[in-house]
Amino acid sequence: MSGLEGKVLVAQGGGPTAVINQSVVGAVIESKKYPEVTHVYGALHGVSGIVNEQLVDLTEATEQNLEAVAATPSSGLLSTRDKPDEAYCRKIFEVCRSHNIRFFFYCGGNDSADTCRIVNQEASAAGYDMRVIHVPKTIDNDLRVTDHCPGYGSAAKFVAQAFAGVNLDNRAIPGVYIGVVMGRHAGFLTAAAALGRTYPDDGPHLIYLPERPFVTEQFVEDVQGVYAKYGRCVVAVSEGIVDPNGRPIAEQFTGGEKDAHGNVQLSGTGALGDLLSKVVKDSAKIKRVRADTLGYLQRSFLGCVSAVDQREAREVGIKAAHYAIHHNVDGSVAMKRVGDYAIEYFLTPLETVARHSTSMPDDFINSTHNGVTDAFVKYARPLLGRMPTLERFSAPAVDKIYNK
Amino acid sequence: MSGLEGKVLVAQGGGPTAVINQSVVGAVIESKKYPEVTHVYGALHGVSGIVNEQLVDLTEATEQNLEAVAATPSSGLLSTRDKPDEAYCRKIFEVCRSHNIRFFFYCGGNDSADTCRIVNQEASAAGYDMRVIHVPKTIDNDLRVTDHCPGYGSAAKFVAQAFAGVNLDNRAIPGVYIGVVMGRHAGFLTAAAALGRTYPDDGPHLIYLPERPFVTEQFVEDVQGVYAKYGRCVVAVSEGIVDPNGRPIAEQFTGGEKDAHGNVQLSGTGALGDLLSKVVKDSAKIKRVRADTLGYLQRSFLGCVSAVDQREAREVGIKAAHYAIHHNVDGSVAMKRVGDYAIEYFLTPLETVARHSTSMPDDFINSTHNGVTDAFVKYARPLLGRMPTLERFSAPAVDKIYNK
Repeated sequence: MSGLEGKVLVAQGGGPTAVINQSVVGAVIESKKYPEVTHVYGALHGVSGIVNEQLVDLTEATEQNLEAVAATPSSGLLSTRDKPDEAYCRKIFEVCRSHNIRFFFYCGGNDSADTCRIVNQEASAAGYDMRVIHVPKTIDNDLRVTDHCPGYGSAAKFVAQAFAGVNLDNRAIPGVYIGVVMGRHAGFLTAAAALGRTYPDDGPHLIYLPERPFVTEQFVEDVQGVYAKYGRCVVAVSEGIVDPNGRPIAEQFTGGEKDAHGNVQLSGTGALGDLLSKVVKDSAKIKRVRADTLGYLQRSFLGCVSAVDQREAREVGIKAAHYAIHHNVDGSVAMKRVGDYAIEYFLTPLETVARHSTSMPDDFINSTHNGVTDAFVKYARPLLGRMPTLERFSAPAVDKIYNK
Repeated sequence: MSGLEGKVLVAQGGGPTAVINQSVVGAVIESKKYPEVTHVYGALHGVSGIVNEQLVDLTEATEQNLEAVAATPSSGLLSTRDKPDEAYCRKIFEVCRSHNIRFFFYCGGNDSADTCRIVNQEASAAGYDMRVIHVPKTIDNDLRVTDHCPGYGSAAKFVAQAFAGVNLDNRAIPGVYIGVVMGRHAGFLTAAAALGRTYPDDGPHLIYLPERPFVTEQFVEDVQGVYAKYGRCVVAVSEGIVDPNGRPIAEQFTGGEKDAHGNVQLSGTGALGDLLSKVVKDSAKIKRVRADTLGYLQRSFLGCVSAVDQREAREVGIKAAHYAIHHNVDGSVAMKRVGDYAIEYFLTPLETVARHSTSMPDDFINSTHNGVTDAFVKYARPLLGRMPTLERFSAPAVDKIYNK
């Protein structure tokens, strides 16, 4: 036991996921079981809601309400794109101290882990005893240390179901279909399109990831090859693909609008898909070419969640409360894959997860840079939970009479 | 009884839906029950597969296989964009005669109904006794006579779940979100975005339909009004919106590529969304503006189906077999809404459904041309079946201490 007595504060940062509320609710319900916890607060809009003291008292939320929110996608406590520096983190800590908050749980990606690290330092430096736990979440699956990230499985399931569907559509009315998937630096989400395949000739037939240079001429050649073989072609492309000089393909053809972090805007625009579509029409001389950008549906669609992801997101929230309140330690909750397939949860130091992110390992990407390996499929399959199945008619051809 | 003895031929035309296979499988299984039916054939790629005699013998498909395909989205017999003229229809009929096909069931929209009408005429003129039934399907919900179309409910469910999700996402990280929905002339599918609302301030806050002129200045004013009120704004726009002169907005800013029917390509491009996004950024001076085009996911996403739609699609297929084989009549299967909510099925003459389509009635559209009425919501609600629910945290605000 920590011996600490005071309040718990929970917040959510960065892009929402389908299961991030599971983590918050797991942490809230678990925290309420400890007598040394006087109140469980939630901050609205992440760290910005802490410095502005936009706090709500989740101690007063009924378990029924909490469970209903847990099953709701997106960040129930709302989110922020703020990346706090030291001064910002000092203010976070000061607000926490003023409310006698002794346990702070922040759900987010590597930037949120870094915020946790700095807030923890600030509290330490001020001699204020406060436990800070980073609760992992990201649809990009790009956190270090952990086997995978809560939020990824559900987004991957959406992407796989989307490509399974558009593949059926593309079989019915053949042509080239290009689907643009989220992921600035890590290709995990785009790679998940491969999990939508059932039959050997099912698409996506080509998958392009930000981990490998995107060479336009090679792309055209790849598409032509698949089209010649199947009379159609389904392509999954990461929004973050870069040319051999490391320059984002999207940057070259969009206005290059920058987001809150100074990055080129990739999501919420169809420009990259339309560009690739034009390239195929012009260079490969294929007429029916369609491009969709999966966009925000990938992370927030109501009603597409991986049960495995849901349970793991809940567990990392519960574990956060355990580690902080019962064990009196700081860190980031991480997952280790054991057997086939089970998860062991553990705590890793904040600095091992903070700031830097990771991307697809080499053995998950094929040698021709246009697909994923069986090793990736084996890795990702259990994370998506149960997938809807599909089937084709199994009926013999009829001999021709009229045209014979 | 018809007294006719011979084969049944089933085919699918036009854009796939999530439940079109239910109709085919309903027709196949029902047809097999009649001793006068010697075989049940399926044509691959719709009418083009008939003239090319790409036929499969569905009599040999197991019921287990048929049921698995029924639950699979998109056209299991594959589809076509061909709109047959008289010569084409004569060939369809000739192929049918050569195979002793006496019952032809064609699943599709108003163009497919027209094909049924002409084929029926050709058979009649040749003195060949042949029943032709049009089985309705379209995600656009634009067929005449019928209360609604099989295929619409599932696509509407997808759109509603998509907007329910992006609304949650937009609450978490506020800005303007524009979602472009399929529908060239009829706004039913775009209007379904309204079914994604739960709380009074939930988006979509604005809905633009092809039935009303789209005035850019008014659109900007509408968005500014919502943004001023809620600090965010979610917009649903039909891909088919037109300016006051009836010119498609999309045409003005895309390359104006024509599809197989000589229409400007609307789907499979993000151009319209990106244009509207730019308009809001430039004119409304709002920084975070994102646009997604829902694209092909709307009609083929694996794992999003309305159970009501599924059952109705099945029923119209079964009824097709009843009408043709048992009652010896031609026509288009239609649905009448009775009570709240039940369906009575009936047959309407092919010419009442063929060629011309319908669109949203006036009382479904609000007077300011930027939303739908309660009458529409009441109409559409039962078609979507059970929707996933969502909830917000219900917790009181905490008094400020640090910033007080």
